[in-house]
Amino acid sequence: MDPSIRAPFGAIEDGAIGIQDGRILRVGRRVELAGYRAKRVESLDGAWVTPGLIDCHTHLVFGGNRAAEFEQRLQGATYEDIARAGGGIAASVAATRAASLAELTAKARPRLRALMAGGVTTIEIKSGYGLDPAAEIKILKAARALGESEPVRVVPTLLALHALPVEFRERREDFVRLATEEMIPAAAGLAQAVDAFCEGIGFTPKEVRSLFEAARAHGLRVKIHAEQLSNLYGAALAAEFGALSADHLEFVDEAGVKAMAKADMVAVLLPGAFYALQERKKPPVALLRKHRVRMAVATDCNPGTSPVLSPTLMLNMACTLFDLAPEEALAGMTVNAAKALALDHEIGTVTAGKAADLCIWPVSRPAELCYWIGLPGPDRRIVGGTDH
Amino acid sequence: MDPSIRAPFGAIEDGAIGIQDGRILRVGRRVELAGYRAKRVESLDGAWVTPGLIDCHTHLVFGGNRAAEFEQRLQGATYEDIARAGGGIAASVAATRAASLAELTAKARPRLRALMAGGVTTIEIKSGYGLDPAAEIKILKAARALGESEPVRVVPTLLALHALPVEFRERREDFVRLATEEMIPAAAGLAQAVDAFCEGIGFTPKEVRSLFEAARAHGLRVKIHAEQLSNLYGAALAAEFGALSADHLEFVDEAGVKAMAKADMVAVLLPGAFYALQERKKPPVALLRKHRVRMAVATDCNPGTSPVLSPTLMLNMACTLFDLAPEEALAGMTVNAAKALALDHEIGTVTAGKAADLCIWPVSRPAELCYWIGLPGPDRRIVGGTDH
Ligand SMILES: [Zn+2]
Ligand SMILES: [Zn+2]
Repeated sequence: MDPSIRAPFGAIEDGAIGIQDGRILRVGRRVELAGYRAKRVESLDGAWVTPGLIDCHTHLVFGGNRAAEFEQRLQGATYEDIARAGGGIAASVAATRAASLAELTAKARPRLRALMAGGVTTIEIKSGYGLDPAAEIKILKAARALGESEPVRVVPTLLALHALPVEFRERREDFVRLATEEMIPAAAGLAQAVDAFCEGIGFTPKEVRSLFEAARAHGLRVKIHAEQLSNLYGAALAAEFGALSADHLEFVDEAGVKAMAKADMVAVLLPGAFYALQERKKPPVALLRKHRVRMAVATDCNPGTSPVLSPTLMLNMACTLFDLAPEEALAGMTVNAAKALALDHEIGTVTAGKAADLCIWPVSRPAELCYWIGLPGPDRRIVGGTDH
Repeated sequence: MDPSIRAPFGAIEDGAIGIQDGRILRVGRRVELAGYRAKRVESLDGAWVTPGLIDCHTHLVFGGNRAAEFEQRLQGATYEDIARAGGGIAASVAATRAASLAELTAKARPRLRALMAGGVTTIEIKSGYGLDPAAEIKILKAARALGESEPVRVVPTLLALHALPVEFRERREDFVRLATEEMIPAAAGLAQAVDAFCEGIGFTPKEVRSLFEAARAHGLRVKIHAEQLSNLYGAALAAEFGALSADHLEFVDEAGVKAMAKADMVAVLLPGAFYALQERKKPPVALLRKHRVRMAVATDCNPGTSPVLSPTLMLNMACTLFDLAPEEALAGMTVNAAKALALDHEIGTVTAGKAADLCIWPVSRPAELCYWIGLPGPDRRIVGGTDH
């Protein structure tokens, strides 16, 4: 019997893990593994081991940051004031376009390392602050360069419809055409999936549909920022395209949830943005549970609405703000996040055959990972069987 | 002219700091200090230096933790269910009483180190989970032991009236007498101040008054947990005794704020508890500003209502939840926190004559310390002139 369906958290008390060639060879109770001989045996002194954390929704790569705007708003400036002064997303786009690939990569590296120190072993990184084909590709290349130079798995996503650049203000359809006809073909070897921000202040369902059709034609999976501020039925639209996930979802209704369930999509909850924007309407967790839609949890690390650098804080916020049980929150940054990245065959659980991506935590029970507010990272972080 | 009254954050651009024998010898613009010769000169490559962070309100020393209850509540248990099962503060008291001084100290050490890694160089630690004289003194001794064995300044406080222990349920007045007649005399050499939880579910103003009279008689300063859940006029009461601070203050009114201003008390804001309890009524920051009451910000690190391990997260929460400007938030964990501990002559600013307690941060402007959510600690943390 699979222990993961017996115990809370799928926990194995007094367990042991056998690792070979970067993969998990065996896992079970220590007495069950007693017959095996290993080259090296290490005692963890009763520490808890979890799968490495998976951050399945980030916008990690961007130029500049928006600390100055954060300060201005708290000194009384409105979002409008800031936008008129060239701030907001336009500021991030300008800084991202101006940065070289090397600069962009270097700027993102400390953020990535902060998340890694917090326990992240796999991270999704979206483009979306370039808003032209060359800059979008530059971001995807920065994401790839980070994955090649740091001990972390990086999954790049082309966020092709994020915001309308000012130069296209009078011709939206030209920008959508640029996304579908130029960005997607250029990203096809670099990105796993194509994403869009479907919202009144973003792109219409019709625009997103044409993007998703192009993605499908190029063999790319899709995912969607949907129902964050209003219900445009973006989740249901994405379901038609067999999307990996719909993300945010504060305003999704039961029809949307049902569509997600039928398409076996993951609901990615982003409590950092909810917190930073001080929103009040929570995602409908009860509905997601009722229809057995798997819930993931991610940092949404981005310069505007979620400058989050701590994955364990998101575990706490998922519980505190969205009422997830600790077991759900932890599944949200492990097994369900793996599914949101179509990597559930490879990572997300401590299972024989999967990659040995593990975190070893100085806690006395798994719920502590969610209970502490601002818990530092694991004592040890293992990627592909190697300590980092 | 003192640069601290000219520039936001009292910032000195292209500054230099001279340190000798653990104290700040000179500080100013680099060109102003160019004439001085130092034994050793270090370039910080444009990093920002702040005073070491001061966490002026914590309950860091306690037995056990309440992760199991956190989990039970998210699985549907009510606070009542948990209290009936011996949980809540009673569980922390039982675990604290059962632990030896060495065990208590060892359990608190990783929490202290997490806060230190986040930038804390001075920390206030309250007793309050002992609820009998011997256990309260044990906590104060654990606090002292931590200060002696870690590179951090510890300021112990006797929280004499925190909760009524079950064995005194039918005789409140006997417990208050125990606090005033036994705890205070025993703590006189160990604690700087005496604290009380003045609240409907805590202690009445009358009980707190008798405690404060005893504190005064023993030469101890006072401070108060006041106006967190209702307005019992605790801040004004504490003002009569020249209190260092009143803490929480969500429900304080203008009369209370005026009393605090007149007594030159600090308002200690605790956004971690506000967040964890998902409160809605914010402390009246506008009133505090109007009457020029200095605001400090602290973690309130405690097992029940604020298991916070990150000081920089409190900077962000002070801005996000309480609308403080970044400059106010940072002053809240430096200069104003020093005043709340009556240590403003010694720490809290980068000023010639004060102790060289400094943090060196990988940020490009001070507001970034508040902008990031879950920012890891400083690159370097200096206490008394020495890197730690
Ligand atoms: Zn996003
Ligand atoms: Zn407190």
